[in-house]
Amino acid sequence: MIISIIGGTDGLGKWFASFLKNKGFTVIVSGRDNIKGKEAEKELGVLYTSSNVEASKKGDIVIISVPINVTDSVIKEVAPHVKPGSLLMDITSIKEGPSKLMKEYSNEGVFILPSHPMFGPETPSLKRQVVILTPIEGEINPFFKKIRKFLENEGAKVIVVSPKEHDKIMGVVQGLTHFVYISLGSTLKDLEIDIKESRNFASPIYELMINIIARIIGQNPYLYADIQMHNSQIINIHEAFIKNCEKISKIVQEQDRDSFVENMKNSAEHFGNETKRGLNCSNKAVYAISRENEKLLKSIGKEVGLKHIYSENVHCGILKEVYSDYLVIKQNEKEIILNISNVSLMDDKDLKLWKDENLEKYFTDISVLFKKNIDLSIIIELLAHKFEIQVIDTYSGEKIDKNELSVTFRVYSFNKPELKVLRETFSFIIDNIGGKIRY
Amino acid sequence: MIISIIGGTDGLGKWFASFLKNKGFTVIVSGRDNIKGKEAEKELGVLYTSSNVEASKKGDIVIISVPINVTDSVIKEVAPHVKPGSLLMDITSIKEGPSKLMKEYSNEGVFILPSHPMFGPETPSLKRQVVILTPIEGEINPFFKKIRKFLENEGAKVIVVSPKEHDKIMGVVQGLTHFVYISLGSTLKDLEIDIKESRNFASPIYELMINIIARIIGQNPYLYADIQMHNSQIINIHEAFIKNCEKISKIVQEQDRDSFVENMKNSAEHFGNETKRGLNCSNKAVYAISRENEKLLKSIGKEVGLKHIYSENVHCGILKEVYSDYLVIKQNEKEIILNISNVSLMDDKDLKLWKDENLEKYFTDISVLFKKNIDLSIIIELLAHKFEIQVIDTYSGEKIDKNELSVTFRVYSFNKPELKVLRETFSFIIDNIGGKIRY
Repeated sequence: MIISIIGGTDGLGKWFASFLKNKGFTVIVSGRDNIKGKEAEKELGVLYTSSNVEASKKGDIVIISVPINVTDSVIKEVAPHVKPGSLLMDITSIKEGPSKLMKEYSNEGVFILPSHPMFGPETPSLKRQVVILTPIEGEINPFFKKIRKFLENEGAKVIVVSPKEHDKIMGVVQGLTHFVYISLGSTLKDLEIDIKESRNFASPIYELMINIIARIIGQNPYLYADIQMHNSQIINIHEAFIKNCEKISKIVQEQDRDSFVENMKNSAEHFGNETKRGLNCSNKAVYAISRENEKLLKSIGKEVGLKHIYSENVHCGILKEVYSDYLVIKQNEKEIILNISNVSLMDDKDLKLWKDENLEKYFTDISVLFKKNIDLSIIIELLAHKFEIQVIDTYSGEKIDKNELSVTFRVYSFNKPELKVLRETFSFIIDNIGGKIRY
Repeated sequence: MIISIIGGTDGLGKWFASFLKNKGFTVIVSGRDNIKGKEAEKELGVLYTSSNVEASKKGDIVIISVPINVTDSVIKEVAPHVKPGSLLMDITSIKEGPSKLMKEYSNEGVFILPSHPMFGPETPSLKRQVVILTPIEGEINPFFKKIRKFLENEGAKVIVVSPKEHDKIMGVVQGLTHFVYISLGSTLKDLEIDIKESRNFASPIYELMINIIARIIGQNPYLYADIQMHNSQIINIHEAFIKNCEKISKIVQEQDRDSFVENMKNSAEHFGNETKRGLNCSNKAVYAISRENEKLLKSIGKEVGLKHIYSENVHCGILKEVYSDYLVIKQNEKEIILNISNVSLMDDKDLKLWKDENLEKYFTDISVLFKKNIDLSIIIELLAHKFEIQVIDTYSGEKIDKNELSVTFRVYSFNKPELKVLRETFSFIIDNIGGKIRY
């Protein structure tokens, strides 16, 4: 079976090309960019053609995987060339428009299955990923069951809805979400709110909101424009939201406490069990933000690694004090003041990695005599809880008693003066667990 | 100096009463509820009177700390009785109205300092807490510097703004935030979106939004009504937001991609460095939500504790499989299916506590001979990384060699059949660290 992927030289199309090739299908990819095409051919072992039409003619399954703003024109280009008996699919994040166009522009006998995979090209497999299928209502499609079964066998969760229902839900999930935060961003600009200063008037939910606005308005605006502008349901959703804003604002203006309360209660009732679930989940999110600050406060007097969020430079030193917007660390006998907003606290693992790569590491070697028949792995496991160690030599032979084993440990530290203390502690422990320091 | 706190028998007023009493001031509290008043008198060692007027007459500083919806009437009641030379303060979360009323209803020679402490009564101290002071512009107030210094000496961060500016910022920080999420909640109801089902169309930002809506609409609606209805700036803020929604909706309707992009870019520019900071912080929040799921996936095959978020019942067993909305655990040879949304994964510490309290614990005692001069605490520290142990007896005397010490360890497990294996592992380790099993 030949599967042609229009736009399969990049992004999610390329992901599907690689995935399907590995599953044993013959895969043809097409795309405008010859260089990317040749690369994909070499990298994935698929066939490349620069002609979308040629790829469409050959495919038993033809999958259109192009950016949302060119989906319509590509459907019009390729749909008429898909051969009867074949399946035409698309994987765009809106479904009503593409469904109609694919139906309209393809020949009699071509089957249509619009789809929306809810994941990106960084996904390792289909396991636990969501794929939405929006088959044409009332149409018998021999491919539908097969595709569904294939996806489910690969571990995907398949949701089947109508194209219209899909667009309505996605209009809310993506469209309304983006719309509200983008509108909030532009409102805060109009009101001339100093965002940084406003964070001083701390409220965790406000901070979370500011963070989400920032996250969205900082991304590629063209993508967000396309998501808004290609969904046929979006204007209805905007209108429903604006209507509710106006209603509630009027209630507030009229000081109509009862209506305000009733409205909130009705919403909570509509949310049902999700109300409690949301509280539970938002606690986790709020906690994540305040947690770093708590961690900083708990780390006063201890060694910390602070990574600058812009430059990614790392400051490593003893944390002296934490104020509301800045902190002081002592690094190589110098006090350094850092803006808390600009740094993020590294976890122990990341700090360890950074130190391994960037700091000079000192060590001391200690030779120990054990009874010959001991299990050295047990000793290493117990000691590794307290020291960073490595066994660099074991010896048994003439120089020592025949019932003894000599083991040389290398004990590491980033702090040279500390080595002396480490040596003493290490030796003391060895003395207590049946070993003897050799030298 | 006498400090009178009107409404000091409960909530934040009571917190200030206790705090100021501990700082050595004479504190009088007033409040309608005689029982609470008598309790506060006993608990805090302050004086109680049921008469707000009496308390106001006596105070060198009078602090009004009553719910927002009765603040106005309490100001009208008490302000005329504050003696000249005294200070009248309030701690309501809106400032423009109370400031004007306090000025209007108090006598010549009474000083006014409206304030807004940005914390709740669960705060242990003023350290790192924000207090907003909104002094009357152009008025010389000998108390202002003293109060500010007092707060700063206690570690508080003091922000000074005008009452109007305060209400504008709080109108955004609290008012706009609540307004948007409450409007979203009622929009989702109008659109008949099945909240639980909509979560299947996974997008972390949408889920976060749903969780915040749920968090807000699930709380006391009267409180939220009061916050909206008492802020004089709120209607302007609503209008600015609705205007921006309408503008962006129109841009989308007209398919005006350039204006959409320009609007987003302008907002991002207004946010400046906060854009990157927000991305950084929202990543932490998003990560917090997905983290539990990742943890669940990593725990497959291992023992987990799952606490039901409504009943708080705990299920403890081996996690067999995790699906998108449910999971399977094996508990006492029985497979149990649980809805993921209804349970939260316990961390190791909580699970340990729960098991200690709820499960039968088994143990085995093992007597070991060590050299008499060993440091037992070192041995215990090393072994505690691998076993839950307790030393129940040590012995040296006639029954054993005079150079030996006998130590009896109790090794615990929640799993009776496992004790045999534990005994073997424990004995093996002891053999390797210079000990001898005694029996």
